[in-house]
Amino acid sequence: MKPIRVGLVGLGTVGTGTFEVLRRNQADIRRRAGRGIEITLIAARNVARAQSIVGDAIPVVPDWQSVVDSPDIDIVVELIGGYETSKELVLRAIANGKHVVTANKALLALHGNEIFQAAQDKGVMVAFEAAVAGGIPIIKALREGLTANRIEAIAGIINGTTNFILSEMREKGLDFATVLRQAQELGYAEADPTFDIEGVDAAHKATIMSAIAFGIPVQFEKAYVEGISKLQAKDIRYAEQLGYRIKLLGITKRAVVNGTEGIELRVHPTLIPCKRLIANVEGAMNAVLVNADAVGASMYYGRGAGGEPTASAVIADLVDITRLATADPESRVPHLAFQPNQMTDVQILPMSEITTSYYLRVYVKDQPGVMADLTRILADATISIDAVLQKEPGEGETRTDIIMLTHQTQEKNIDAAIAKIERLPTVVGTVTRIRLENLS
Amino acid sequence: MKPIRVGLVGLGTVGTGTFEVLRRNQADIRRRAGRGIEITLIAARNVARAQSIVGDAIPVVPDWQSVVDSPDIDIVVELIGGYETSKELVLRAIANGKHVVTANKALLALHGNEIFQAAQDKGVMVAFEAAVAGGIPIIKALREGLTANRIEAIAGIINGTTNFILSEMREKGLDFATVLRQAQELGYAEADPTFDIEGVDAAHKATIMSAIAFGIPVQFEKAYVEGISKLQAKDIRYAEQLGYRIKLLGITKRAVVNGTEGIELRVHPTLIPCKRLIANVEGAMNAVLVNADAVGASMYYGRGAGGEPTASAVIADLVDITRLATADPESRVPHLAFQPNQMTDVQILPMSEITTSYYLRVYVKDQPGVMADLTRILADATISIDAVLQKEPGEGETRTDIIMLTHQTQEKNIDAAIAKIERLPTVVGTVTRIRLENLS
Repeated sequence: MKPIRVGLVGLGTVGTGTFEVLRRNQADIRRRAGRGIEITLIAARNVARAQSIVGDAIPVVPDWQSVVDSPDIDIVVELIGGYETSKELVLRAIANGKHVVTANKALLALHGNEIFQAAQDKGVMVAFEAAVAGGIPIIKALREGLTANRIEAIAGIINGTTNFILSEMREKGLDFATVLRQAQELGYAEADPTFDIEGVDAAHKATIMSAIAFGIPVQFEKAYVEGISKLQAKDIRYAEQLGYRIKLLGITKRAVVNGTEGIELRVHPTLIPCKRLIANVEGAMNAVLVNADAVGASMYYGRGAGGEPTASAVIADLVDITRLATADPESRVPHLAFQPNQMTDVQILPMSEITTSYYLRVYVKDQPGVMADLTRILADATISIDAVLQKEPGEGETRTDIIMLTHQTQEKNIDAAIAKIERLPTVVGTVTRIRLENLS
Repeated sequence: MKPIRVGLVGLGTVGTGTFEVLRRNQADIRRRAGRGIEITLIAARNVARAQSIVGDAIPVVPDWQSVVDSPDIDIVVELIGGYETSKELVLRAIANGKHVVTANKALLALHGNEIFQAAQDKGVMVAFEAAVAGGIPIIKALREGLTANRIEAIAGIINGTTNFILSEMREKGLDFATVLRQAQELGYAEADPTFDIEGVDAAHKATIMSAIAFGIPVQFEKAYVEGISKLQAKDIRYAEQLGYRIKLLGITKRAVVNGTEGIELRVHPTLIPCKRLIANVEGAMNAVLVNADAVGASMYYGRGAGGEPTASAVIADLVDITRLATADPESRVPHLAFQPNQMTDVQILPMSEITTSYYLRVYVKDQPGVMADLTRILADATISIDAVLQKEPGEGETRTDIIMLTHQTQEKNIDAAIAKIERLPTVVGTVTRIRLENLS
């Protein structure tokens, strides 16, 4: 059988990784796929640089249109990122009847519904294993491995940059700004790290997992997104003293509010009990914890970024497409796991409606009755306290931190209680609130 | 489209779980598969009991032949275990043109080559996700998720019974026999626990993973199999003091011996550094660590046994088969990951040729020069020592334990060194040897 012909758009880290891995493991990949997979055309902004990487055997062009419109290409691999040109590119590839592989989580979280619909109409596949958690085959696990299950909840460390920063802050007791600078020097964080540190990247990925897990459209605009840039070193320390680690989690789960089913979709720093396996995922590693009714808890761990790990996912998609290229479109795995006419309209809940536990740090004047005031406010809101940590004021200081861990309550309850606490005359400044998940 | 018709043979824990999950999640499974999956006939030894579980809507027969020979069945699910009747059953189902789903690792580890060849010849699928690590989709990850990679090594906690026993021994400081009895009372160990505690079950699973990872036939007869029944509580304690946990691992990896490629395939108690994620997999949970060239390390964690977790894997296979039932056999994932005409003849190494590190415990008379003798023997064999733990003799005792951790060496070197150590007049009894893997 003739090799399947792949057009690669973008020869950055992942593009180069894809080229290298396909070349290095060519024989093994063909032994698995039963058919060769060959990159036959590449588009890259810097043609000379690209040509120096891939050699003379593969032509390089400066414009993506040449790849997408080429009649000699079966699959287009989109690795340029962003969501404007990439959207145009992917839609045009689909219109031209090409299958598409993309690592672009931003594109799919924002325009996935339109893209998958176009692919469906045209009878082509859009594969995106590389878009979530890089080298971990989590999309395959969710779409195919766990098909028997009603998925209940997903919680993932799905951004390596922030996990690296949080690991360093905890291990070395450093503050956020210092570690971010180091991460940038080491190449773990980008020059403009906003998307990573503010949780946007994780929210893109959580949005995609949410759709696949629950059979709903991608709805990035409804995700709650909070990053780690305001996290203080002392909160990491206090959490540790209470038996918790702080991780940036992408969470999506089923919830019932006033008898109605809803979906939570949120990214924020989260306290997790130290003894949980996922709390011990350190450095730039990713891990996704899935709770489902038949299988219970399962976890998927590995590298979430980098050239070759991401290439591993891109190429797995290429092999899948190669196998199914000649198959009836009906027998393919649906893009969003559920048949397109079988999606549900379960709503994503506003943040005020979600339920979780909380870590509250209150900076107070060291006076009698402060604790009584705090606990009274929480009791009035029917919020139970699980643990309290009161620090001694430092030498010569008259103010100190009180930390409280609450039981589960609705976000709007804690919002109201925090507002009351902040109005207390003994309370200085604002209350620090970090959500807590037991993940039991 | 008409539902696909499934015949279930065996209605024990997994069979009942499969029935229950298929019924409970019927709607969601159909929304994913695009086609109903219906159990239409069941064979069970105790028909009355089976009928009381599944109700009147599904007929139950006492003989498996009626299911396998029925013209109204598309897929046969084999859940009777063992490898004699089950082999006859599976081969006859294949001969009748049925697809087969099985959870039977013993059957596949021993007769997989013959079964897959028969399926290949007949153009049907034999799916076996449930055979390894129950609810964890590790077969799918290895066969499809990591197709881009040259897989280098797999190390798995793939037997829940032994992991439960080891976790309890460590946490409670109890000996093997006591914990085994408790595990039997709790239903974590069977009345005859031999296959679990002696490592046979783990070796079946490691054998299957070995074939899939490296493109070789299943070769259970070449696996090295050592269980945990001789493990002493004090070795677990000493390991802990040195920073290690002891786990029963199924290991299969590439190795080069004298310039020739080979495969290691072995199951034995193994020291692992405490800080490794897999060292913290406790109780009856399973986890499989995979090292591959592009993706690096990845790990898959979840329940390895039990009715519904295993049913999760059985049903995922049913969905895969349902999707591909009408597809060209060429486009299906090959049974052993590599195209059948593309297997390699890389040999499984005899145990004497494998390379690893070692924990040695030597019971010695507390006399001057003992340590010098031990270290001399190891130095003469060019085995480096990584750590030593010498215990004080107990009150009024004249003998004590010396524990040494070695660097990597070949098994035959350590065998020779141990033989010499055991001949020393100061050494009492035999040397306890436990292998050690850094899994870095």
